[in-house]
Amino acid sequence: MAKKTSSDRPRRPASKFLLAGIDIGGTKIHTVIARGNGTVLGRARKKTRPERGFDGVMERVKENLLEACEEAGVRIKELRAIGVGAPSAIRADGTAVHAPNMGWRNAPLARTLSRMLHKTICAANDCDLGTFGEYAFGAGRGSKSLVGLFPGTGLGGGIVDRGRLNRGGNRLAAELGHMVVVVDGRTCGCGRRGCLEAYASKTGMSAGLAERIATRQWKTTLKSQEDLLGLRSSVLAEAYRGGDELVRDVVDEAARYLGIGVANMITILGPDTVVLGGGVFEALGRDLIGIVRTTARDHVFPPPSFKDTRIVLSRLGDDAVALGAVAYAQSEMGLR
Amino acid sequence: MAKKTSSDRPRRPASKFLLAGIDIGGTKIHTVIARGNGTVLGRARKKTRPERGFDGVMERVKENLLEACEEAGVRIKELRAIGVGAPSAIRADGTAVHAPNMGWRNAPLARTLSRMLHKTICAANDCDLGTFGEYAFGAGRGSKSLVGLFPGTGLGGGIVDRGRLNRGGNRLAAELGHMVVVVDGRTCGCGRRGCLEAYASKTGMSAGLAERIATRQWKTTLKSQEDLLGLRSSVLAEAYRGGDELVRDVVDEAARYLGIGVANMITILGPDTVVLGGGVFEALGRDLIGIVRTTARDHVFPPPSFKDTRIVLSRLGDDAVALGAVAYAQSEMGLR
Repeated sequence: MAKKTSSDRPRRPASKFLLAGIDIGGTKIHTVIARGNGTVLGRARKKTRPERGFDGVMERVKENLLEACEEAGVRIKELRAIGVGAPSAIRADGTAVHAPNMGWRNAPLARTLSRMLHKTICAANDCDLGTFGEYAFGAGRGSKSLVGLFPGTGLGGGIVDRGRLNRGGNRLAAELGHMVVVVDGRTCGCGRRGCLEAYASKTGMSAGLAERIATRQWKTTLKSQEDLLGLRSSVLAEAYRGGDELVRDVVDEAARYLGIGVANMITILGPDTVVLGGGVFEALGRDLIGIVRTTARDHVFPPPSFKDTRIVLSRLGDDAVALGAVAYAQSEMGLR
Repeated sequence: MAKKTSSDRPRRPASKFLLAGIDIGGTKIHTVIARGNGTVLGRARKKTRPERGFDGVMERVKENLLEACEEAGVRIKELRAIGVGAPSAIRADGTAVHAPNMGWRNAPLARTLSRMLHKTICAANDCDLGTFGEYAFGAGRGSKSLVGLFPGTGLGGGIVDRGRLNRGGNRLAAELGHMVVVVDGRTCGCGRRGCLEAYASKTGMSAGLAERIATRQWKTTLKSQEDLLGLRSSVLAEAYRGGDELVRDVVDEAARYLGIGVANMITILGPDTVVLGGGVFEALGRDLIGIVRTTARDHVFPPPSFKDTRIVLSRLGDDAVALGAVAYAQSEMGLR
């Protein structure tokens, strides 16, 4: 077979640069120091403590970066750029528009970190970066067009097309968890009704559990109301694998809804790859991917196009957003 | 104000070439002869007569092209290329995969016309071309990213991103009428359930009328079962404007569903422009666009992104697909 020429596939980042990628989540900050080819040299992790306010979190981001640099044996000044992901829409100037989990509104994320660290900061939405990470270094390597869906507490997503994140002209789009799949359906955390997130995220599953418990008796190992509200992926996974009737019913339903979301993305965009990740799929991916694939196949139009899309599990796990931040910083800086 | 540089906006086709655009529909063939800048020099229109089979339709396409050329005072040999739209997914080699309205399966559309006319034929799905036409010459001029939605008997759509039709790697995507908006909802003509088309097209409205008539008495001017099945846009428009209670209820509902489809496209892709066209909007666009906008605004996420998208009516009307075919042929041939 002829060797592929470079024009056959999007260019991959080169390995000669050192970069940092920082994933600022609602509960933890996770930083990687990596080469431009995705080789991780060091990691660090720290609680976010959003209750300390924006400035407090920024201090912890800096501490975490220093810890990761120390582990990697790298000094901050050796880094060519730093990519940062946060659970918010992020404007082109690096402002985090609204991050409810952090309590931020119009927070000057990139500007603040740039002043503190004297480095170029490339900031973007965390799920966009998770998608970009899988495209550059993970399950989407070799892909030309990729959609990522990450069910966790909420449901984020991202779109990569021809090597570029597609977020609309205003960078606010690719909010895949908020496509409406049930007109006038279940109320979503966003206040609207019938969003995919209201069915296929952990918040959606909590609602599904509550609806079921209200209507009849179930055999279940879930012990308390707490299990329902602060539903942890590990608790779900244990109950699911243990054959818990209630949990299996609600989780399988969530997977079917996710399959319909996947089908819609194939019907609309026809990506060559869909990557599924996030807390729920880290814990239960192998159990659920069959349901997602089957449901997607049954809802894609036109039917033959289903076979042109691979539906795969994330490969980067906890590193997806941070490594996506590395790839994104590199791409934004034009480093090759 | 500084003059815009050419890099600020996608390039527009130049005017020095002569091209033809042919819209092959289920009931009529519509051909335009135009310059590369969209100036129409001649038009012709003919019944399709799909019952005469693929070869019979191809003969009629040729006759129609000759009539349009005669009206324009142009000879076929002066044309640089011919764009053709048909109600089917069309592969890269110009094969029409499946056109139920025409009775075609894997019909060699481009190859046959190329042999008959000794010209380069650039064939694509009709709604993709309608979208591209509005982008190049119509309501989407100046746009960078555009989504078209065309409710008629069915509901087709298209996506233009950075000057290029986005149809997925296999050219089968952008089937916007088949995104699922009601999981387990109304049965669609495609056999699946809950597609946007099952609510917002004329076929969907027929189903909505039948459902309503089955449940209670309505004041209506619709006279017969025929009005329900072969629902014509002009009949709908007359009844709607006459205040027909039944028709207003069902058409307003269809417009709300279309608004949710528009919202989903803004949430997913954030285009700067959404164009609404097709039979229903040719007839009732001014009456319905307010409902579409309001519903879209209420369902877009995040809410601020709504204001970055214009939602507008088609400007090209019946010429949209044929002029899109002109722009597409030019773009595929690299003519500038």
